[in-house]
Amino acid sequence: MAARRLKFWGWGYDDERLSQAEERMAMRRYAERFGVDDFTRLPNPTAEDIELAAPAVSPPANLARICSTDAHDRLVHTYGRSFPDYVRIFDRDFANAPDIVAFAGTEDDVIAVLDWAAGANVAVIPFGGGTSVVGGVEAAVGDRYAGVVSLDLTGLDGVVEVDDISRTARIRGGMRVPALEAALKPSGLTLRHFPQSFELATVGGMIATRSGGHFATLYTHIDDFVESIRTVTPTGVMESRRLPGSGAGPSPDRLMLGSEGALGIITEAWLRLQDRPTYRAGGALMFDDIHKGAEAVRVISQAGLYPSNVRLLDAAEAEMNGFGAGREAVMVLAFESADHPVDPWMARAAEIAVELGGRPEGADAGSSDGHTEGAAGAWRQAFMRMPYFRELLTPIGVINDTFETAITWDRFRDFHDNVKAATAAAIEEATGAPGIVTCRFTHSYPDGPAPYFTFHCLGRRGGMLEQWRHIKRKASDAVIGNGGTITHHHAVGRDHMPWYTRQRPDAFGATLKAAKDVLDPAGILNPGVIVPLPGA
Amino acid sequence: MAARRLKFWGWGYDDERLSQAEERMAMRRYAERFGVDDFTRLPNPTAEDIELAAPAVSPPANLARICSTDAHDRLVHTYGRSFPDYVRIFDRDFANAPDIVAFAGTEDDVIAVLDWAAGANVAVIPFGGGTSVVGGVEAAVGDRYAGVVSLDLTGLDGVVEVDDISRTARIRGGMRVPALEAALKPSGLTLRHFPQSFELATVGGMIATRSGGHFATLYTHIDDFVESIRTVTPTGVMESRRLPGSGAGPSPDRLMLGSEGALGIITEAWLRLQDRPTYRAGGALMFDDIHKGAEAVRVISQAGLYPSNVRLLDAAEAEMNGFGAGREAVMVLAFESADHPVDPWMARAAEIAVELGGRPEGADAGSSDGHTEGAAGAWRQAFMRMPYFRELLTPIGVINDTFETAITWDRFRDFHDNVKAATAAAIEEATGAPGIVTCRFTHSYPDGPAPYFTFHCLGRRGGMLEQWRHIKRKASDAVIGNGGTITHHHAVGRDHMPWYTRQRPDAFGATLKAAKDVLDPAGILNPGVIVPLPGA
Repeated sequence: MAARRLKFWGWGYDDERLSQAEERMAMRRYAERFGVDDFTRLPNPTAEDIELAAPAVSPPANLARICSTDAHDRLVHTYGRSFPDYVRIFDRDFANAPDIVAFAGTEDDVIAVLDWAAGANVAVIPFGGGTSVVGGVEAAVGDRYAGVVSLDLTGLDGVVEVDDISRTARIRGGMRVPALEAALKPSGLTLRHFPQSFELATVGGMIATRSGGHFATLYTHIDDFVESIRTVTPTGVMESRRLPGSGAGPSPDRLMLGSEGALGIITEAWLRLQDRPTYRAGGALMFDDIHKGAEAVRVISQAGLYPSNVRLLDAAEAEMNGFGAGREAVMVLAFESADHPVDPWMARAAEIAVELGGRPEGADAGSSDGHTEGAAGAWRQAFMRMPYFRELLTPIGVINDTFETAITWDRFRDFHDNVKAATAAAIEEATGAPGIVTCRFTHSYPDGPAPYFTFHCLGRRGGMLEQWRHIKRKASDAVIGNGGTITHHHAVGRDHMPWYTRQRPDAFGATLKAAKDVLDPAGILNPGVIVPLPGA
Repeated sequence: MAARRLKFWGWGYDDERLSQAEERMAMRRYAERFGVDDFTRLPNPTAEDIELAAPAVSPPANLARICSTDAHDRLVHTYGRSFPDYVRIFDRDFANAPDIVAFAGTEDDVIAVLDWAAGANVAVIPFGGGTSVVGGVEAAVGDRYAGVVSLDLTGLDGVVEVDDISRTARIRGGMRVPALEAALKPSGLTLRHFPQSFELATVGGMIATRSGGHFATLYTHIDDFVESIRTVTPTGVMESRRLPGSGAGPSPDRLMLGSEGALGIITEAWLRLQDRPTYRAGGALMFDDIHKGAEAVRVISQAGLYPSNVRLLDAAEAEMNGFGAGREAVMVLAFESADHPVDPWMARAAEIAVELGGRPEGADAGSSDGHTEGAAGAWRQAFMRMPYFRELLTPIGVINDTFETAITWDRFRDFHDNVKAATAAAIEEATGAPGIVTCRFTHSYPDGPAPYFTFHCLGRRGGMLEQWRHIKRKASDAVIGNGGTITHHHAVGRDHMPWYTRQRPDAFGATLKAAKDVLDPAGILNPGVIVPLPGA
């Protein structure tokens, strides 16, 4: 349905890949790192390689117009973009492909699909950007359903209304971030919320998964930009009022934020926008190690300065992202405004960092252009290309994954050291050789950071899924055992459910189950996500 | 149980009243305003004036130690502090007095009370500060219960733990704000959340009612300071993790924020704290009218400056609060920081205000001491004394009430004009004479203000309750009909339920009902609040 066809086996669109130079550089780096002479590489799968089971259900006549059982459509909608997804993609394993893909173009389409599915006992997996890294869009729903439909929402496209007085817009749930930004540009407004998946991510998907975006402080989650939400549930439409703030009972929007398609389909939302920034200041500071840098991030986060960026990379991660020699941690600092020069803000934040041992990187630290130069600029570029590397690393046999969390400052040092050690140990147990575990902060709060861990190790062909599962289990146990959250912005999906149910209060889980029973009495919406499957 | 005894017929403690000078000044002002020669004043009630029904239930033996049927205790726990509460207090009408007051000193006490009440079909009304202005603590629960216990939580007192690295503290739910601030003072930390009820307000009560506090932008509601909550429900204890941020499913804390005692009793919370500010700047600017001022508040609120105060008072309200001649609106502007001088912030905000027609008030506008001088200082003093005036105005026959809301900027002008006109018309309908309706902003967001309306009119002895009901109904209809929220920070209680059920999506209401059925299956917790009474 999109003008550009999506890759079913990799990131983004068919016409966009890593360059040969990027591939060569990455292969050389990993070969050095793991002492490998040369990697053998599995070929990219083609649709012809894959045998799909015949659809178990057929769409009714009234939905035939929007439904597809075309192989490419079913392949694109089988997986998200997690490491285990890639392993199975390169194994040509599409056993969980949905029976049908329904392309909703209107809210009535969504209602019609839910009506049919509830009556026919068909599970509905909402599909926006399809970028889940936690098994959020996979039809792994067991055998209690007659079939599965993947409900593609990207046809619910467009900005319906812009209110440039309140700086908000009413946006359809399936609209992708780049199209949204293009549509807003003439008004001078921007959502300015860029998860790493922003190329593909949809407004409804970001709300359903509580995505984390551009701003490292203050407006960290999409939550903070939500003014109201319109949701289609199997029992009716639910729409909250447009309000800048309210104290009338528990917030209806907060029930849908993080509902991950299990309670309803977000068809529209009013989101708060920003003026496009015109003033900037930024730079990078080097620290002896992550703990020295963390102390500076803490003090800056508690100073009421609200930098747009105050990301911290440990020494290995800094090096991996193309700067430094692996001996120093780096803090990337930036301020931006559409209203006023931000130099006093930047000057004070840099002063705090220097007081706490930070060394400005190069001559540009603290300058008004610093944000696109040096370490800061390198980071920005690397961040945008990162999702593409999994389509190289997986077929050459490198297990590569990330997990992210949040923890209060008082516990950060032990948390970091324990989680890193547990992950490193699990890698050795699973693969028999050491791997690499690195950490950065993606967001920061007055009471704690959101640490983001990346690990790489050499996998065993044919055993990578099992190896990954061991590492993921041990790392998640460490995150939960040391007091963190199983996710700060990657969502719960199916992969995090065992730890999510340990994390959230049981009584709260019971209220979510009760809410689902009210809104989705047939239990057809994204089964097994947020609310455990019956008997699970 | 408190060292100082609470007034049962007025604000705060027995030993604190309006001074004779304050009373004389107010009486003179209202006499002039309404063209009255002299007011007759009902005497303050005494416990001896009031005939209380015998308690319908008795506490069980295991609770006798913490239960009281003493008249003063029952009188203190009969009402909140709304205008209709005062009318009935001065009418000596305590028909809804609770049968028993239970003073919980520990979480086990709370559990024991809920266990007994659930088995004995006794309604439980949680009672913290007792300052509800919306009927939130009144035992108006119909006749389906064997009796009612008011559960006083102020014995759950104390700061359990301070984490001065993360700047958070674990605080018992019944702790009042002044005691909390005193306990935090040695650490240099402060919650810095001061609803107008702060003298009496408790931490758990503020969380349950989503109170609005000191900061006019950014950290407007207590919501923003909540790191985790511990709640006792009739089916068990629910406690969320201490996390600076999370994306793991819908937020458990957001279910309890605004639950108003209908889902559980908040026994503890970790709250985010601030360093005590040492740098300040502030001042006041005069505008031709509220709409000119609103435009400046809007632009400042969208500039990313985050003033601690950016309150706007219309001309009449400004005059009523002791400055100006009733011809100009005033904006009170303040910045504060514990980390850095805030002059660049203040300078830019003042510049915006002046560009948009603001005229600095006096020589001190924009100065570092401006916040305690002139208009700003007068406002601060008036704000703190305001709650006491109802104990004078009601017995002299002045109907006096406030209601507050929030609305997006694009609709503010019409909203303000329509709500004000509807309220003024309702006053004339109810009393046959014009009253006074004024407006200020208490808080402001990038996408809209939180307008706060005050009205005064001359009531008819014996008919004031009915007159007030008419005005309240028409004003609330206008708020809801024009797109606002029925409350920005006063909560829903029993008084706002008819409009709350119009405002919140029905499907969301059904999920709240389902949550209550799970957590409070006997339906004993604050019946009729947030979730309608069966059959209502």
